[in-house]
Amino acid sequence: MKKIRPRRKKAAATDQRVLHSKKAVLAATYELLSMEGLGGVTVDAVSKRSGVAKTTVYRHWPSRTVLLLDACSQMGTKAQPPDTGSLKNDLETLTAQVAGRLPTAPWTRIMPSVIDAAERDSKLAALQKRIHAEMRGAFQSVIEGAQQKGEISASLDPAEIIAAILGPLFYRRWFSREPLNDHFVKNVVTRALASISES
Amino acid sequence: MKKIRPRRKKAAATDQRVLHSKKAVLAATYELLSMEGLGGVTVDAVSKRSGVAKTTVYRHWPSRTVLLLDACSQMGTKAQPPDTGSLKNDLETLTAQVAGRLPTAPWTRIMPSVIDAAERDSKLAALQKRIHAEMRGAFQSVIEGAQQKGEISASLDPAEIIAAILGPLFYRRWFSREPLNDHFVKNVVTRALASISES
Repeated sequence: MKKIRPRRKKAAATDQRVLHSKKAVLAATYELLSMEGLGGVTVDAVSKRSGVAKTTVYRHWPSRTVLLLDACSQMGTKAQPPDTGSLKNDLETLTAQVAGRLPTAPWTRIMPSVIDAAERDSKLAALQKRIHAEMRGAFQSVIEGAQQKGEISASLDPAEIIAAILGPLFYRRWFSREPLNDHFVKNVVTRALASISES
Repeated sequence: MKKIRPRRKKAAATDQRVLHSKKAVLAATYELLSMEGLGGVTVDAVSKRSGVAKTTVYRHWPSRTVLLLDACSQMGTKAQPPDTGSLKNDLETLTAQVAGRLPTAPWTRIMPSVIDAAERDSKLAALQKRIHAEMRGAFQSVIEGAQQKGEISASLDPAEIIAAILGPLFYRRWFSREPLNDHFVKNVVTRALASISES
């Protein structure tokens, strides 16, 4: 094994310290976001909570917005597309997954402040778009897969089916604040796949 | 006609001034809300924008929260239930009405910050509940009317039908930010009323 020279050892220790600080700053930012929304995140508050000096925070994230974007990108809203062989089952599995997370996942407390900020701030609007694309990705891929196999008509608009599924779920989580039980989830998927030829 | 004594005249003038100040304060609060969300509303900013002294603002609204509640209660989210004789037509009319307002109505820019605050503040959660009840009231009444007439089964849950309608609309306005055209509105209502007996 190659012998590590002292100078390199010192550099490695510095790298470790930097990594550690960056992790602490991102964790503190995410905690503040969950507790207080975007409004609660100032570089001051993040510095206090993480114990990392403000100058260090600014060294890695030149502005509060950049820090917010970085912290929000870890929201973990991505789902894995299942492959049960039937679109209805795939969608029920996915929808139940999302419905299971909505009541308690920390990112659900952050979303409203991201949406609020996105109404006025183009950088945060771009962030919201990215989060949303991640969230709907799995739905999109199972629906398009079913269209390719001919399981449902290629003339159906996947974006409409997704709106018919995520819409009612999000509505219950953030607007009506009603429960998201299994019965509701099943009916949401049934309605989303209902024939709309009569319209 | 009874002669107005000078003292009463003076009192009436004071009343007018008070009314005028209150109106100016509420208008300024609403404007700040639309432009910047709840975060933009401080008594300082409202006083500056309305030209009404802070002490006067506090005389009528003992706290920022009370002022917010008062300003938000004028959001104008209420719809009138139509009566076309058919539930499908009634719902299409109502849904088109809401979809028509969502892209541009000032209250739609305020809603996300109310929802965000409601995640953490019980008074604003109560306000959100009230706004939401006003918004869904017309839907509730046409659906329940149709159930009483036997047009749809009494076993269907009106809250589920409403979630299937308002959900996709709100989803497009605040989450996916996709257009809310006539075609979408019609399909949303068709899906909401689809038979769910197979589930």
